[in-house]
Amino acid sequence: VARDDAGELRALCLERHEADIADLVEQLEPDERPKFIQLLGEDFDYAVLTEVEDTIREQILEALPSAAVAEGVRDLESDDAVYILEDLEEDEQQEILAQIPDFERALLKRSLDYPEDSAGRRMQTDLIAVPPFWNVGRTIDYMRDSDDLPDEFYEIIVVDPSFKPIGKVALNTLLRTKRPVLIETIMDAPVHTVRADLDQEEAAHLFERYNLVSAAVVDDHERLVGVLMFDDIVDVIQEEAEEDIRGLAGVGDEEISDTFLYTARSRFTWLLLNLVTAVLASLVIGMFDATLQQMVALAILMPIVASMGGNAGTQTMTVAVRALASRELGGYNIRRFVTREMLVGIVNGFLFAIIIGFVASVWFTNIQLGAVIATAMIVNMFCAGLFGIAIPVGLDKIGVDPAIASTVFLTTVTDVVGFFAFLGLATILLM
Amino acid sequence: VARDDAGELRALCLERHEADIADLVEQLEPDERPKFIQLLGEDFDYAVLTEVEDTIREQILEALPSAAVAEGVRDLESDDAVYILEDLEEDEQQEILAQIPDFERALLKRSLDYPEDSAGRRMQTDLIAVPPFWNVGRTIDYMRDSDDLPDEFYEIIVVDPSFKPIGKVALNTLLRTKRPVLIETIMDAPVHTVRADLDQEEAAHLFERYNLVSAAVVDDHERLVGVLMFDDIVDVIQEEAEEDIRGLAGVGDEEISDTFLYTARSRFTWLLLNLVTAVLASLVIGMFDATLQQMVALAILMPIVASMGGNAGTQTMTVAVRALASRELGGYNIRRFVTREMLVGIVNGFLFAIIIGFVASVWFTNIQLGAVIATAMIVNMFCAGLFGIAIPVGLDKIGVDPAIASTVFLTTVTDVVGFFAFLGLATILLM
Repeated sequence: VARDDAGELRALCLERHEADIADLVEQLEPDERPKFIQLLGEDFDYAVLTEVEDTIREQILEALPSAAVAEGVRDLESDDAVYILEDLEEDEQQEILAQIPDFERALLKRSLDYPEDSAGRRMQTDLIAVPPFWNVGRTIDYMRDSDDLPDEFYEIIVVDPSFKPIGKVALNTLLRTKRPVLIETIMDAPVHTVRADLDQEEAAHLFERYNLVSAAVVDDHERLVGVLMFDDIVDVIQEEAEEDIRGLAGVGDEEISDTFLYTARSRFTWLLLNLVTAVLASLVIGMFDATLQQMVALAILMPIVASMGGNAGTQTMTVAVRALASRELGGYNIRRFVTREMLVGIVNGFLFAIIIGFVASVWFTNIQLGAVIATAMIVNMFCAGLFGIAIPVGLDKIGVDPAIASTVFLTTVTDVVGFFAFLGLATILLM
Repeated sequence: VARDDAGELRALCLERHEADIADLVEQLEPDERPKFIQLLGEDFDYAVLTEVEDTIREQILEALPSAAVAEGVRDLESDDAVYILEDLEEDEQQEILAQIPDFERALLKRSLDYPEDSAGRRMQTDLIAVPPFWNVGRTIDYMRDSDDLPDEFYEIIVVDPSFKPIGKVALNTLLRTKRPVLIETIMDAPVHTVRADLDQEEAAHLFERYNLVSAAVVDDHERLVGVLMFDDIVDVIQEEAEEDIRGLAGVGDEEISDTFLYTARSRFTWLLLNLVTAVLASLVIGMFDATLQQMVALAILMPIVASMGGNAGTQTMTVAVRALASRELGGYNIRRFVTREMLVGIVNGFLFAIIIGFVASVWFTNIQLGAVIATAMIVNMFCAGLFGIAIPVGLDKIGVDPAIASTVFLTTVTDVVGFFAFLGLATILLM
């Protein structure tokens, strides 16, 4: 497509949505991508770059001249511009910012000064704010005359003289109201505001909970500085759930376009941690080498106890991690939840104890062996339930993301308890 | 709170958002909940019920008289009404519908006739549609005069005489345009439509991809039947990611308010499947009982190989499952992805082979044993990478949700290959 230069590319892109063009860009070879953008020149909409994967975006931005990027970024809504700039190296970012006119640069810089993943980074600084004493007609005229409006907005914000948001008016209300009516009589009074330094996840919870389409962002002095829009929040919600899934499986922030070396390195740490866990479990087994020597059946059966504990614990842990993330699990219901999980552990522990006890007794024609594995199963599944909650809740309390660290701790517990209970009981009762 | 009757409850709820009242309802004892709603009577906003957990909602609806529910549901937006009614038993649903006036009932029934989790179930049937030859002024007057409008809307849909959507106009565009301008000159022409029987997940992808605030829903004849709003879609996106996390861990559609017996039963099947897997792995170990008898070190080390394979495989599988769910992994990049994962498996396989080979050699002062475990590690981590993709992609191809079934298959493979490779090599080389 992009091999031989053409204005036909322009025709191709003109009618397409930025997400579709982004797909096109991703399918090109790495060195064709910046070429593609330069071929399009001014007709390239930099909003496309917000839709490509992070690593691809960084490669493209590094390859493009900073003047072109500065020009492209200027035309964007401020939230898209920040999204593109925030992951760049400090000096590249400065170089691009230097080529943007003062006023716009100041706004972008203010957004970039807020912490990473904060509402301030995601907000749009183009917005419409009116005083409460304006009437509907004046507001509409103001919107007709002003040409510096955002492309899309669904609500206007009502502010007091110190620029504090005091209410908001949905556009449909505005449309349905006669011109002479005062804004203050139609505004929704308690407006949901978000502090600019608030974590974007917290902001997302607010949107989800109250079904917001946009929310006013305020600074430390409660003054309006921007607006968060639902579409940015949709991405945050998506990312957040994604982070939990990845965290639980020990895959970091990787993308399917990453190279194999990068991927291998990023997964190495997690596997190394798991190796330590596995060796720990082997040390426990090693304590009972004399017992194993005498009865090889124990070696054959022991992974069953550990594996069932691991799976039961993972079920509990997953529910706990998600409930913590979505703020469903808190002070008032935590006791109920802990009791339930322990009961679940005991009930399923007993059921599987009966099953495996029977299987083992028949397999090795040894009823005592069946009794030992059954008892070990109950112990391990009870511990799995207990630690399946205790670990994520504990990590959450000390401020560590439970999704990222819980799995390793849990496997350690279920392996160690599983092998120890089974082989320990066997040593006492069967030897 | 709700023990002694009072109009003070009314005052409490009047100013609060439905999500906050829902929290309140959830914190009450089960038998207090319907009482609370009946105390509030007409002041209870049934939209609150869309915000409580599924099981709690069902309990409440069963306890309330159907006339009260019918009355409450009538006042809701159609999507909320459907959401409340869809999970009820057939006969209860009929009983409630029978008490709703004809026209509204017909609309609700049409929505309920669409398949579960389809766009038709989530759509709102109150909407604003205008012909292209109206001008802005007439459209605004129409909106001012009509009192059957939805509470919230952000776009109006432009339809042709057969009621097919041909474009849409954002409210802000409408506000900024002079009254005599024709709608057809300001409308956005290619409108994203969603078929009513489309799965809600597919609809969510469309919203996400194109940052839509709403989308027109059409029937088999491309005629407009409703509108999907972004807030319903936010819930779908959330649910979908949630489903994947839960599927991978083997927890079904449970909620933290479920009873322990219900929870234990719903997790039992998954654990039973895992038991079968674990027994299968034990059978493999059992093939080598003579070898184990002679060398107890093998029993001590063997869980390491299986566990590392399991973890490496889970990493690959998780990335694959999410990439499939978000449509990032498709025809054109699947080969690249498979190659990458196999290379990752080989690279990390070699690294961990060196580490564990060294550890085992020193621990048991047996270099051959180190060599055996190192080789088994490479084999198992390579297989883990291979099957970590093959399983989810294969399941996806045959139409099974990869999130739900992949884990069991993968563990079976990594356990069987791990034990077989390690003990098999040991039997050949060390005996």
